[in-house]
Amino acid sequence: MENYYAPLDAAFHALADPTRRAVVSRLTKGPAPVKELAEPFAMGLPSFMKHLRVLENDGLIRSKKIGRVRTCWVNAERLNAAEAWLSEQRALWQARTDRLADYVETHLSGSMDDAG
Amino acid sequence: MENYYAPLDAAFHALADPTRRAVVSRLTKGPAPVKELAEPFAMGLPSFMKHLRVLENDGLIRSKKIGRVRTCWVNAERLNAAEAWLSEQRALWQARTDRLADYVETHLSGSMDDAG
Repeated sequence: MENYYAPLDAAFHALADPTRRAVVSRLTKGPAPVKELAEPFAMGLPSFMKHLRVLENDGLIRSKKIGRVRTCWVNAERLNAAEAWLSEQRALWQARTDRLADYVETHLSGSMDDAG
Repeated sequence: MENYYAPLDAAFHALADPTRRAVVSRLTKGPAPVKELAEPFAMGLPSFMKHLRVLENDGLIRSKKIGRVRTCWVNAERLNAAEAWLSEQRALWQARTDRLADYVETHLSGSMDDAG
């Protein structure tokens, strides 16, 4: 089921929901069984399982059933890809605002010399 | 229209599409008119405008029409919020894997002493 669309599409799609983000946050601290993951949420297990399936299909988490217990863990690679994309955008944006700040500073210090 | 749902839901929702991510990337380099933004994409203007509306409703870009030209720019605050959330998750994940590495290292060096 995974990778039915581009990795970044999938990562951002999965993260566009507060329940799914909370599950990812919990799993960054270590693997957990479904029952424990579901506990903090005021929703039925079927609704919660839908969120887990979205997370797994979108590649942000992995799971394995051993006996009667399904355990989930985070797929750091997919999470890192999403962060890397956003960092890159911030770097571009930052470079632009830095150049703008340099320009303003040069211009302002020029004006102050003129005034002084 | 904006903020009809939580800021992070909105940011990640907007970013779950390659056209919208490409527009954000372009706008990190500076404001641009709609016509210029649409140019690289093989889609009709109405379809492209739908993507711009999603980006604006989700708070990732702003726009203003002056005369007949609508100019768009990036809303860095919303982009930064999404990046901050992801960085936080990576930090949690990193702390956990670092602790795991420390444990493994301690354990391994113990074993090597035992063997030596």
